[in-house]
Amino acid sequence: MSASLQMSRRIRRTPYTACVEKSGITGFTVVNHTLLPKAFQHSVIEDYYHLKEYVQIWDVGCQRQVEIKGQDAEFLIQKITPRDISKTKIGQCLYIPLINGEGKIINDPILLKLENDHFWLSIADSDILLWVKGLSTGMGLNVKVEEPDVSPLAIQGPYSEDLMVEIFGNNIKKLKFFNFNYFDFNNTKQLIAKSGYSSQLGFEIYLNNSKLGEKLWDTICSFGKKYNLRPGAPNLIDRIEAGLLSFGNDMTSENSPLECGFEKYCALSSDIDFIGKAKLKSEKNIGPKLKLCGIAFGGEAQSACTIPWPIYFNNLKIGEITSGIYNPSLKVNTGIALVMTENLDKLSTVKVKALNSKITEGVICSLPFTISKNYELINQIRY
Amino acid sequence: MSASLQMSRRIRRTPYTACVEKSGITGFTVVNHTLLPKAFQHSVIEDYYHLKEYVQIWDVGCQRQVEIKGQDAEFLIQKITPRDISKTKIGQCLYIPLINGEGKIINDPILLKLENDHFWLSIADSDILLWVKGLSTGMGLNVKVEEPDVSPLAIQGPYSEDLMVEIFGNNIKKLKFFNFNYFDFNNTKQLIAKSGYSSQLGFEIYLNNSKLGEKLWDTICSFGKKYNLRPGAPNLIDRIEAGLLSFGNDMTSENSPLECGFEKYCALSSDIDFIGKAKLKSEKNIGPKLKLCGIAFGGEAQSACTIPWPIYFNNLKIGEITSGIYNPSLKVNTGIALVMTENLDKLSTVKVKALNSKITEGVICSLPFTISKNYELINQIRY
Repeated sequence: MSASLQMSRRIRRTPYTACVEKSGITGFTVVNHTLLPKAFQHSVIEDYYHLKEYVQIWDVGCQRQVEIKGQDAEFLIQKITPRDISKTKIGQCLYIPLINGEGKIINDPILLKLENDHFWLSIADSDILLWVKGLSTGMGLNVKVEEPDVSPLAIQGPYSEDLMVEIFGNNIKKLKFFNFNYFDFNNTKQLIAKSGYSSQLGFEIYLNNSKLGEKLWDTICSFGKKYNLRPGAPNLIDRIEAGLLSFGNDMTSENSPLECGFEKYCALSSDIDFIGKAKLKSEKNIGPKLKLCGIAFGGEAQSACTIPWPIYFNNLKIGEITSGIYNPSLKVNTGIALVMTENLDKLSTVKVKALNSKITEGVICSLPFTISKNYELINQIRY
Repeated sequence: MSASLQMSRRIRRTPYTACVEKSGITGFTVVNHTLLPKAFQHSVIEDYYHLKEYVQIWDVGCQRQVEIKGQDAEFLIQKITPRDISKTKIGQCLYIPLINGEGKIINDPILLKLENDHFWLSIADSDILLWVKGLSTGMGLNVKVEEPDVSPLAIQGPYSEDLMVEIFGNNIKKLKFFNFNYFDFNNTKQLIAKSGYSSQLGFEIYLNNSKLGEKLWDTICSFGKKYNLRPGAPNLIDRIEAGLLSFGNDMTSENSPLECGFEKYCALSSDIDFIGKAKLKSEKNIGPKLKLCGIAFGGEAQSACTIPWPIYFNNLKIGEITSGIYNPSLKVNTGIALVMTENLDKLSTVKVKALNSKITEGVICSLPFTISKNYELINQIRY
C-alpha cells in the first residue's frame, strides 16, 4: 500500500525541491521537517547498480546544520558527545554520536570545525537545535546557536571526482576523506567536504545560499551528462552493505552508543567531562544488553523493511532487523539488526520472520557486509 | 504531482496505524517523526461536511506527550512559556505557546496538569523533549522528563458526545471544555479530555497503553456506526474557518507570540520569570512587525496551499498566506496569513497570487472566519 505524502509549508522544501520535482520524483520521506527525495523512476536495485557504476546527485538539504559559535562553543560540543573532539582540526569532519543524560543516543551528526570557536553539526533526524539551545540557555554559556541557510547537496559515485573537478577545479583532488575546503561557485565561496552517505567516493556541497540551489543543481546536471549522472537518494541496499547506520531506524534514543558499536567513540577512561558519562561507565561495567550487527537471511527477495522484522533463536525472540532489503550483489537478504548480547557468540544460525513471508534461516554478520568472513557465513544459508 | 511517503522505522507508526491502513488511508503527513493520517477516500470538502454533521475518529497519536514530573516541574514549565500557569488546576488543559531565548515560538502545546508536580505537554511538531531535557540538564533541576507511551485518539463532530457516552458512560457529559478526567476502558484507566483540533464538539482519548490501540479504535468504530462515524483527520477547511493555528505552517521559530496574536498569553507586566521575556518586552515596545490574520480571496477555488502564496498591496509584497484552501460554506478561498503591520489598518483590498492562478482580489479578515463582520468584507470580493 502506497499512500501519498500530503504537502504543507510545515514539511519544508529545500533549495533543490523544484529541480527534484522536474526530475520525476516518485517518493519522499521527511527528515528534520524537510523533504528528502527517496525514489525517482528507477527501482532501488537499478539505483544501487547505477550508484556503483556512475555518479548521482542527491538532494540532502534535510541534513540541517546546527551552527555553534562563540567562546564556549568547543566546551559545549564536548559536553554533548562522548567522543574526544579536542584534536579535531579546522577543515576536518568528525562523526560524533550525541547522547543525553541517560547515556542514550539522540543523534549522530558530522561535526565540521570551521574555526576554533565555530562549528557546524550536520544532523540526522531530531531537533538538536533545541537540545543545544536548551543546554546553552540552562548553563548560561557564551555561544550563539542557530540553523544557518545551508543545504547540502551530495554527489556520489565513482565518477564524482571527475565531475566535481570540472565544476570546482583541480583542488577538489586535494581534499582528503572527511575533510573540507572552500570552492568558488557563481562568485560565492562554498564549503565542500569529501564525504557522503554511501559506500562510494563522494562529495557534499554545503550550499550556503538557498537562492543558488537551482543553479547549482542545473550546473551539476549539465556537466554530469557525460558521466551518466542521475538524480538519486541514499540507497538502502548500499547503505546496509556499507554498514552505514541511520538514526531513528537502526538506533533510537532507546539505545546507547555501546550497543551500537561506538565504544571507540566513547572517551570513558579520559578525564573529559560529557553529559551521560556516568551512565555509560556503569553500562560498560555490566556490559551492554544489545548489540548492533549485520544479518543475512534467505527466502524470497525482500523489499525494504518498514516495520522491524523479528529474529528468533530456539523459538525465543532475540532481536529485530531495523533496516533490511534484498542485496542483488550478495544474492541474499541483508539487514542491520539489534540483537541481545546474551549467548550471541554461541549463535550459529537464527530465524527471521519478514513481513508476509515464511520464517527463514539467517546468520549474524559483521558490518560492513563486504568483509570477507561474511561470505562464508552467507554461503551457509544459500540454498 | 503526488509522491508517495516512503516508509521506514524512523517514521513511527501509532497504535492505530494498522486500523488506519485497513480503513483505506490515501495520504499521510509526518508530525513528531510519527505518521498523521490526512486523507481517506473522500475529498477534503466531503470530509469537512461530514465532520460538521456527524462524528469522526482521528489518529492523532503523533501528538506526543512530554511528561515533566518532580519537584521543579512547575518551575520549569513556567520558564518555557510566557503564559501564567500558576492558576492552572489539576484536570485542566491550557494552551501554552513555548518560546526560546530570542522570544520566538518553538511549539504551542496543550499543557495537562495531572498533579501539582506532574504535567504533560501535548506537543505540535518539534522535539520539545530535547528542549526541556536540555534546559533541565543545564539548570540542574530536579525533574524527570520523558516521552510516555501515550497516543491520543480524537473523536470530533456533533455526535461525539453521544458516542463517547455509550462507551465511557454518562460522566463524559460532566467534562467541561479543556478539562479532563479518567475513564475505564478494558479494565484500564484512561485520560479523556474535552478538546480537539476542530470547530466541533470533541474529545481526545490519551490512550496510555499502545497494546490497546486497535481494540479502542475498533470499539469506537463499532459503536460509531449508527452515528455515521468515519475515519478522518484534522480538516484544513474547518481549521482555517475556526482560526486554529498550526505550528510549522502558520507560525515558525521565526515568529513571536506577539505577531501571532498571543499577547493575551504573555504575562509581560507580571513578575513571572520566563525565558525570552526581555525580548518580548522590547518587541512590545516597538510593536511587532508582522500580524497573523485571516484572509479571504476570490478567483477559482483553490486546493490546499503547499507553498506560501504572496499577498500584495500597491504592487509591494506585504505578506503571505501560510495555510489556504477554498471554503465551500463561505463560497470563497480562505487562508491564514502573516502580514506586515505597517499600514495594516489602512488596507482595503489586497492582491493574492495563488500557485498557478491569476492574481485575484482579497480582504484581510479576523479569525475565526465565522464572526459576523467578516461576511461583509467577503461580500466585497464576491463577484
